[in-house]
Amino acid sequence: MHATLIHAPGDIRFEEVPDPRLSTGGDAIVRVVAACVCGSDLWPYRGVTPTDEPHRIGHEFVGVVEEVGPEVRRIKVGDFVIAPFYDCCMACVNCLNGFSTSCLNGGWWGEDDRMGAFADAGQGERVRVPHADGSLVATPSMPDDALVPHLLTLSDVMGTGHHAAVSGGVGPGKTVVVVGDGAVGLCAVLASARLGADRIIAMSRHADRQALARRFGATELVEERGKEGVARIRELTGGVGADVVLECVGTKESMDQALRSARPGGQVGFVGVPNGGPELPLRVMFGTNVGVRGGVAPVRNYIEELLPEVWDGRLQPGAVFDLELPMSEVADAYRAMDERRAIKVLLRP
Amino acid sequence: MHATLIHAPGDIRFEEVPDPRLSTGGDAIVRVVAACVCGSDLWPYRGVTPTDEPHRIGHEFVGVVEEVGPEVRRIKVGDFVIAPFYDCCMACVNCLNGFSTSCLNGGWWGEDDRMGAFADAGQGERVRVPHADGSLVATPSMPDDALVPHLLTLSDVMGTGHHAAVSGGVGPGKTVVVVGDGAVGLCAVLASARLGADRIIAMSRHADRQALARRFGATELVEERGKEGVARIRELTGGVGADVVLECVGTKESMDQALRSARPGGQVGFVGVPNGGPELPLRVMFGTNVGVRGGVAPVRNYIEELLPEVWDGRLQPGAVFDLELPMSEVADAYRAMDERRAIKVLLRP
Repeated sequence: MHATLIHAPGDIRFEEVPDPRLSTGGDAIVRVVAACVCGSDLWPYRGVTPTDEPHRIGHEFVGVVEEVGPEVRRIKVGDFVIAPFYDCCMACVNCLNGFSTSCLNGGWWGEDDRMGAFADAGQGERVRVPHADGSLVATPSMPDDALVPHLLTLSDVMGTGHHAAVSGGVGPGKTVVVVGDGAVGLCAVLASARLGADRIIAMSRHADRQALARRFGATELVEERGKEGVARIRELTGGVGADVVLECVGTKESMDQALRSARPGGQVGFVGVPNGGPELPLRVMFGTNVGVRGGVAPVRNYIEELLPEVWDGRLQPGAVFDLELPMSEVADAYRAMDERRAIKVLLRP
Repeated sequence: MHATLIHAPGDIRFEEVPDPRLSTGGDAIVRVVAACVCGSDLWPYRGVTPTDEPHRIGHEFVGVVEEVGPEVRRIKVGDFVIAPFYDCCMACVNCLNGFSTSCLNGGWWGEDDRMGAFADAGQGERVRVPHADGSLVATPSMPDDALVPHLLTLSDVMGTGHHAAVSGGVGPGKTVVVVGDGAVGLCAVLASARLGADRIIAMSRHADRQALARRFGATELVEERGKEGVARIRELTGGVGADVVLECVGTKESMDQALRSARPGGQVGFVGVPNGGPELPLRVMFGTNVGVRGGVAPVRNYIEELLPEVWDGRLQPGAVFDLELPMSEVADAYRAMDERRAIKVLLRP
């Protein structure tokens, strides 16, 4: 089969690789129907994180189950399934606590699973999925083609935006600021609207992303950044700041802006992968009582809650995909996202 | 009158100072019935924070109202009142949001208030209290002498321990670890028990403090610290860590221990004044989804909730006072706490 590898910064190739084979008993082989490129995939692409040797890449996909191991009970051949951006057992204490990203048995796509077998990455034609019964969620039936992009967001971006909102404590009556207008930030706007936020202030200076933010439920837009952005937020929030700020970027600057945009006693929900390891100023947090909570999103735990609304069309997060390419043109997909010509690119094998 | 001044590290004096006078209209003069020494008072005492010139010190006191300004409506001459460790209006947006420590009109004892008048510090015979109607809470009637220590804890330590527990999300079914066995840590144990925690693990290696922790509701004790302490907590919590960790010290080491003692998706509630400005490792928080929330405790907002239980004897936080001295011997009080001969010293004029 073919799958995507990164060889070096800027060097993405769709190459012949070995077909996956069932090996651990509880695994499944999924034929990928759609995959996509994540903002975090751009880090090795841009050389921000090193690429020591060529390796498989991609962690968001949906598809159809072709084979299952002898221990698989819940998932069946022929199921259309959503895979979270990691694999997990959904039976250990961390999974049951709602944090399947800290699964005691799980792992990451493109790496060896805990049983020593290779788990393919997501941007390929087929993927061996460890812990198939835990990791995969089957849809009620085979979806229409138009529904596929929306379902695909449950692999990562929609669940991650939802996690930001949940971590920040978004709810009715709250004023929410969203820092970051990438696909995750936009999904955080949508998640905040879904959770009943009163006001949603999206920070964005790109017309196309502003339009999507509005469509997803943003009630106000702020184009300023940094100090000016904080000043504008304060102006819009009675001088004190917002109840909740969702940090969906991951830089020192964006986290700083988030912390300073929250009112005393407010909360920052963060899902931006910390880039360059920024540290949080504890003294500032002590003085203002602004809490910080979030991290790598346990999207698997959210699929059951979000899927019914995506399935019946009430929730349409797939609008974040503004470009679709054949998977063989995956290098172009990375280029389009790197150059910010696309918010998020969907790939079909 | 007489009041306490710090002249330099280790140099505490009870000296003649000018009598306070009403000056802003909304203020009151309170005759102090009991005051005490705070762990944070030891910082300038130990030279951890600088003392550039002699100044008034102390911020925890209860007393009887002797005079009120013409604008004061709620508080009356003769009331027995509890003062929080800061003054606040209880009318601005931050006060109404529950964070009176960020009052837009308030200030700190021993400094000029926002109207340019000096607010006496707490370890003195009398105190001018700005925003008397906001800051002070009157008890239902004149308390028995035996009740005074318990009421005094509502000025700071009990409210601060409660804030740690609230910030950490303590509630029924939770396993809570308390880092720090000072008066605040012990009050955090008591607050956790009051809020219905299932298990409360107190980290302490001092027999007297262990005994008080047990009396306050600790179900387990851990004597180990640092790496060994974290290992012991993991052992006691099914290998993953506690739901909630309350950080009541304020050093880099204690915060690190707290973060590593929480389970994935757990929460650190912190009230230890950050000593030396430790920063939080955002990447660790990202990976584990452990949230951090807390800070300078808005104890004024908690007095109404806690006072009835203290008043009727159900809640007895005053047990943290294990030494009582006349206020004229305040220098000995500092020495006893500095040398850890006392958990917390109560002073009577």
